[in-house]
Amino acid sequence: MTIRVGVIGAGIMGADHIRTLSRSVRGAEVVLVADLDAGRAAEAAAPAGARSSTGPEALIADLEVDAVIIASHDSTHAALVTACLAAGKPVLCEKPLAPTVEECRDLVELEGGRGLVSLGFMRRFDPSHVELRRRIADGDLGEVLTVHNISRGVRGAPDASNAFAITGSAIHELDSMPWLLGQPITEVAWLSGRKSTSLAPAGLQDPSFMLLRMADGMLVTLELFLNADYGYVTRCEVVGERGTASFTDSPLLETSTARRRSTEYPADWRPRFADAYRLQLQAWIDSLAHGTPTPLATAADGLRASQVAAALLESERSGGAFVRVAYQGTRQETGVRT
Amino acid sequence: MTIRVGVIGAGIMGADHIRTLSRSVRGAEVVLVADLDAGRAAEAAAPAGARSSTGPEALIADLEVDAVIIASHDSTHAALVTACLAAGKPVLCEKPLAPTVEECRDLVELEGGRGLVSLGFMRRFDPSHVELRRRIADGDLGEVLTVHNISRGVRGAPDASNAFAITGSAIHELDSMPWLLGQPITEVAWLSGRKSTSLAPAGLQDPSFMLLRMADGMLVTLELFLNADYGYVTRCEVVGERGTASFTDSPLLETSTARRRSTEYPADWRPRFADAYRLQLQAWIDSLAHGTPTPLATAADGLRASQVAAALLESERSGGAFVRVAYQGTRQETGVRT
Amino acid sequence: MTIRVGVIGAGIMGADHIRTLSRSVRGAEVVLVADLDAGRAAEAAAPAGARSSTGPEALIADLEVDAVIIASHDSTHAALVTACLAAGKPVLCEKPLAPTVEECRDLVELEGGRGLVSLGFMRRFDPSHVELRRRIADGDLGEVLTVHNISRGVRGAPDASNAFAITGSAIHELDSMPWLLGQPITEVAWLSGRKSTSLAPAGLQDPSFMLLRMADGMLVTLELFLNADYGYVTRCEVVGERGTASFTDSPLLETSTARRRSTEYPADWRPRFADAYRLQLQAWIDSLAHGTPTPLATAADGLRASQVAAALLESERSGGAFVRVAYQGTRQETGVRT
Amino acid sequence: MTIRVGVIGAGIMGADHIRTLSRSVRGAEVVLVADLDAGRAAEAAAPAGARSSTGPEALIADLEVDAVIIASHDSTHAALVTACLAAGKPVLCEKPLAPTVEECRDLVELEGGRGLVSLGFMRRFDPSHVELRRRIADGDLGEVLTVHNISRGVRGAPDASNAFAITGSAIHELDSMPWLLGQPITEVAWLSGRKSTSLAPAGLQDPSFMLLRMADGMLVTLELFLNADYGYVTRCEVVGERGTASFTDSPLLETSTARRRSTEYPADWRPRFADAYRLQLQAWIDSLAHGTPTPLATAADGLRASQVAAALLESERSGGAFVRVAYQGTRQETGVRT
Repeated sequence: MTIRVGVIGAGIMGADHIRTLSRSVRGAEVVLVADLDAGRAAEAAAPAGARSSTGPEALIADLEVDAVIIASHDSTHAALVTACLAAGKPVLCEKPLAPTVEECRDLVELEGGRGLVSLGFMRRFDPSHVELRRRIADGDLGEVLTVHNISRGVRGAPDASNAFAITGSAIHELDSMPWLLGQPITEVAWLSGRKSTSLAPAGLQDPSFMLLRMADGMLVTLELFLNADYGYVTRCEVVGERGTASFTDSPLLETSTARRRSTEYPADWRPRFADAYRLQLQAWIDSLAHGTPTPLATAADGLRASQVAAALLESERSGGAFVRVAYQGTRQETGVRT
Repeated sequence: MTIRVGVIGAGIMGADHIRTLSRSVRGAEVVLVADLDAGRAAEAAAPAGARSSTGPEALIADLEVDAVIIASHDSTHAALVTACLAAGKPVLCEKPLAPTVEECRDLVELEGGRGLVSLGFMRRFDPSHVELRRRIADGDLGEVLTVHNISRGVRGAPDASNAFAITGSAIHELDSMPWLLGQPITEVAWLSGRKSTSLAPAGLQDPSFMLLRMADGMLVTLELFLNADYGYVTRCEVVGERGTASFTDSPLLETSTARRRSTEYPADWRPRFADAYRLQLQAWIDSLAHGTPTPLATAADGLRASQVAAALLESERSGGAFVRVAYQGTRQETGVRT
Repeated sequence: MTIRVGVIGAGIMGADHIRTLSRSVRGAEVVLVADLDAGRAAEAAAPAGARSSTGPEALIADLEVDAVIIASHDSTHAALVTACLAAGKPVLCEKPLAPTVEECRDLVELEGGRGLVSLGFMRRFDPSHVELRRRIADGDLGEVLTVHNISRGVRGAPDASNAFAITGSAIHELDSMPWLLGQPITEVAWLSGRKSTSLAPAGLQDPSFMLLRMADGMLVTLELFLNADYGYVTRCEVVGERGTASFTDSPLLETSTARRRSTEYPADWRPRFADAYRLQLQAWIDSLAHGTPTPLATAADGLRASQVAAALLESERSGGAFVRVAYQGTRQETGVRT
Repeated sequence: MTIRVGVIGAGIMGADHIRTLSRSVRGAEVVLVADLDAGRAAEAAAPAGARSSTGPEALIADLEVDAVIIASHDSTHAALVTACLAAGKPVLCEKPLAPTVEECRDLVELEGGRGLVSLGFMRRFDPSHVELRRRIADGDLGEVLTVHNISRGVRGAPDASNAFAITGSAIHELDSMPWLLGQPITEVAWLSGRKSTSLAPAGLQDPSFMLLRMADGMLVTLELFLNADYGYVTRCEVVGERGTASFTDSPLLETSTARRRSTEYPADWRPRFADAYRLQLQAWIDSLAHGTPTPLATAADGLRASQVAAALLESERSGGAFVRVAYQGTRQETGVRT
C-alpha cells in the first residue's frame, strides 16, 4: 500500500521533503505539489514525477492525495491544517503548528482527538536526540540537574524579529526539552545582551539568551544565535549528578591543512537533521499505512510549545522577567507525552 | 514498480539486509528467504512478510523473485552466483565474490558483460568514504603520497585463519583503495608480528600488517586486527603533499562520567556501515527499477580484489616478501573503475 | 640573587606552592613554613630544606624571609596581608584577597600604591587563558558578543555554602572575565535551580547559575558546580561575530578500551593549572628580583572581584534579581587593568 | 649551588636551551656561549647575561664552566664530547651522539662508565611519553602487540638526505621505542614509496616508511615525513590486547570560524616539546647539583640508537630488505635501560 502525498510549499523545506519522500522513504509517493510560485512548484514536483499547482485548497481536496505535508509560511499553517481536518485527511505540518496560542488551541479542539495532525518536531527522530533521551532514562548520568542548549545558524532571515526567533526557531527546544526530560516547562525568561551589529538585522537581539524552568525546578539554558556566521550547530549538554552527555558534531572527516586540524560545519540545518527528517517521514508514512497512531509530535505538543513561546514573548516585552507558562484551557496542561 | 527480492542466507548479514530492505528501502519487497536452518529463515522472513525455505536453488528459480541477494557462507558464493546467471537474474553478492581467483574469473566470464552481478563492497556507499574520495579528487590535500588503514574488530570467528582474514576482511581495503585512489595495486606484502595469544585463535596472526604498493609507487599500509577487543573501528588516513584527511568515529554522543570523557565504539561493523548498506541497497534497487547499469561494485571489481588477495596469500606463505599482483587473464587488468 | 620565601599555610595549596618553588622556579628558596598544625608545617618544609613553625607573625617578621606567600584559610588573609604591609614585605596572597569588600578596601588603602601585594588569580598565567585573551585582542573572532563559563569540581568542601561558592570559587571568573574582555562587570544575577541532593551539602545550591553583565551590555554566563563528581573542568567559550574559541581539556593521552574512546579528567584543579601556578610564581619571583612592578593581579583587582562577589551575594539573598556592582569608594572604580 | 653552563652552538636548539636555562630552570646559570658565528653567539648570550665566543674548545676548558651543552652541527658532536671527556666535564649532547656507530662506540669506551655524558633524547621527559610508558607498564592495555608512529614536520632542511632523515630525525623513535617498550630493536626495514616532488628535496625519499622489529617479535611502524607542510606532529599509538593509547595534540584552544572547527599545529617541534626540554634540563642540572647519576639518556643509549640507524641505512641502500641490528662490540648489547 502506497501513501499518496501532497506537499504544500516548495521552498527549502518543502523541496527537501519531496526529495526525501521520493528517494528514501518506502511506501510513499508524492503526487501533487502546490506553491504560490508555479515555477517553483513545477521544479520541485518534476523529479518526483508529481503534478504541480498553485492552489493548496485544491491539493487538500484532491482525490489522489491521501495525506498532506504543510511546509508553507508559518502564517498559513492554521488555515491549511483546518482545511485538512475538514477534509479528514492526515497532515504533517511543519513547526510551528501556528504562531499564536489561540490558533493552536483552536486546532487542537478542531482535531478533537482524531489523531490526524502530526507536527514536524523532527528532533524527536534525530538519532543523537533519541540516544540522549535513552541515556537519561537509563540513569547513566544520575538525576539530571541542568541542561545547556546552544542553537546557532549561519544567517537568519533578513527580516527576523525577536518574535520570529522565538516562535520559529527556539520553538524546537521548547518541544525537545519537555520531551527529553519528561516534564513541562513552568516558567521562562528571555534575556538580551550585546547584539551582533554587523550581521544581524536591526530588529533582532542576536544572540539572545533564554532560561527555562522545568516542573522540578531545574534550570535549562538556551543561547539562540541566528547569525552566528561560522556554521550551523545544535548543541545540548545534559548535566546530571553522575556525569554529563552532549551531542558531538559528528562530521564525516577530519582534515589537516595549513597548520590546522579541522572538521566542517554545515551551512544550514539540513545536513545535521537529514536522518531525522527521513526517519520522521518514514515513521509517519508507516503509521498511515498501518493505521496506527502517529509517533510524531501531535497538535497538543504544538500547542504546549506555543504556550511556552507566548511566555517567552511576554518576558521579552517585559525586559527579561521570569514569566509563568499558562497552560490552562486544554486538558493536556499538566502532563507531557513520554 | 516494486522489485521482489529473495535473500539467501539469514545469518547476521542476511537478516540485516532483510530488515533494511523491508523497512528503509523504497521500491523493494523481500518475498522469499532461504537458509539451511529453516527456523532461522522463518524468523528472518516473518517481520518482512516473506516466505521462507531451505533451498537456495528453488529461491533463485522462484517466479516471484526478481532479484537475489547472496549472504550465505563465502564458500557458496560461486555456485549461487552461477545459478543466478543461469537464471538470468540480477544478484547482489556479499563480498567476496568467491574465495579463489579461479572462481572469480569463471564468474566474470560467465556473466559476459551482462551486468547482472553486483558486489557488496558497501564502503563505496559509505558517506565518509564518498566524502574522502571527493576530497582527494578535489585536490584539497595535494598529491596523495601514502594512506594508512586500520581495521579492527572486537572478536573474530573462532576458526579464523590468515587466509580468511585476507579474503574475508582485508578484501574491503583491497577494493576500496583502488576505488579511492583511482589506480590499481601492483604488489603487496603480508607481515607478521607479535600476535594476540589470549584472544585470537592459534592459527591466526592477529594483528597482521599489510603493505600495498599502488601503480604510481605509493605505499599503502593496513593493520588488520580481528580480535582487538576494545571496539570496532575502520580508520583511514590519506596523506597528501598539502595535508591529510581521515575518518572520524562519528559517535552520536560524548559522555563524561567517573573521571573520563568518552565516546562509544560499536561492537561490530553494522552500526558503522548502516548508512552504507542502506544506500547501497537503495542504489541497487533503483538501478533494477530503472534498468540502468549497477552503480555497485561489479564482478570485475570482485575479481581484481581477489587477485590482490591471492598475492597477499602468497606473501603470507613466503614469509612476508613483496609479491606482484597477477591481473593477467582478464581484460580489466590495467584499469580501475572510477 | 635568590628570593627567600616564607609560606604561611601548608595545606593543599601551600604545599603545592612549596613544591613548585623549590623544584621548578629559579631564583627562589623556601626558607620557612608556618602552619597551625606543626606536623603539617614540618612535613611540607622538609623536602624544601626549609624551617617550620606554627607562628605566621614570626614568619612575616623573620629576617631571613624576603617575601611571603599566604595560603592559609580565607578568613586569615586580611590580617596576614596587613602584617606583611606593616613589615613592608612583598606578599603573594591566595585568592580571595579577603572574604568581604570592607577588608579588601582597607587592604588597598593600607597598601597605598606601594605594589607590595600580589594576588593569586593564577588563571592570568594559564597558557590557555593567555592564548584566549590574545585571540580576542587579535580580532579573530570579531566583536565578542557573549561568553559561557563552566566551572566544575569533583567534590566541594562538606561545609560549603553559597557564600563560599561565590567568594571562594566563582571569584576566579569574577577576575578573569574583566581581564579577558577588557571591561568591568556592571551587574550580576545568581540563580538557583534543581540541586544535587545526594552529593552536595544541604546548605549549598549546587549547581548554581550566574549571569554577569559587562559594561558594554554583554551577557556572560557561569555554571558553578562544586560536586560535579565526574571530574574537574574549567570551560570557557567566547562567542564573537565571526566565530568562537574555547578551551580544550588538553589531556595527554587518548585511550580506547572496553568499547570506549576516552580521555581522563583530573580529580582536582592542580593538574589543570600546574603550569599557571609555576609561571605565576616565576613571574612573581622575577619581579621581586628585578624590582619591577608585579605582573600578577593586584590588591585593587582583588577588591574589584570582591565587589562583584558582594553583588552576587545580594542577588542570592534576594532570590535571583539582577544587582548592580557597587565599585564606589575606590579610585579604580571605572577601569580595569589590561 | 648553581651549575655554570657553557653552551656550544647558538642555532635554533642552542638558543632555545639558553632561554630555558636562564628563565625556567632553577640552579643553573649560562655563563658562556660559543658559536662559529660570533654575532649569533653574542645575541644568544646577551639576554642570559653570559659571555660569548667562537671557540668551543676554549669554552670547554673555561674554568667558570662546570658543565657543557653541545647543540652544534651533528658532525661536531664526537670531537666535542671527546674534549669534554678529556676535561672531565659533564656534557649534555644533543642527539645524535654522533652520526656513525664507530664514533659512538669510541665515545662510550672513552667515557668508561664515568657517567659524564647525557644525551638529549628529550622525549623521555615529555609528559605524554612518560604517561604512555606508565600506562603500558600498568598493564591497562594488556600485552602490547604493535605500535604505530607518525613523525611529521613542516619543512625539512633543503639539503636533507635519507641518511640525515634517519640519523637526525628518526633517531628519536629509535631511542624512544626501546625505552617505551622495555626491549631492544632486533631488525629493521626502510621502505620507499611515492615521494613529495613539489616540497621535498630531490635526494630525499619523503615520506619514508620504516618497520622496526622488537626482541619479542612485535612490529613497530614509523612514517617519517619531514616536509608534511600542514604542521608539526608526533603521533604514537600503542596497540595492546585490551586497548590502545595514543598522544593527543593537546592544543590549548579550539576555534570555530568560517565553517570550520579547528585546532592549530605548531610550525616546528619546539612548542610540542617545550615541557620536555625544560624538564630534561632541570633533571640534568639537579643531578649535577646532587652528584647523582644522570636520569637522561646515556652514551650507551646513543650508541644503541646509532646501531639501529646503521641497520636502517643498510636497508635503505639494499632496497628495503629487513636488516638485523648489529649490537656486538659493546657490553650493552642484550639489554635496554628501563
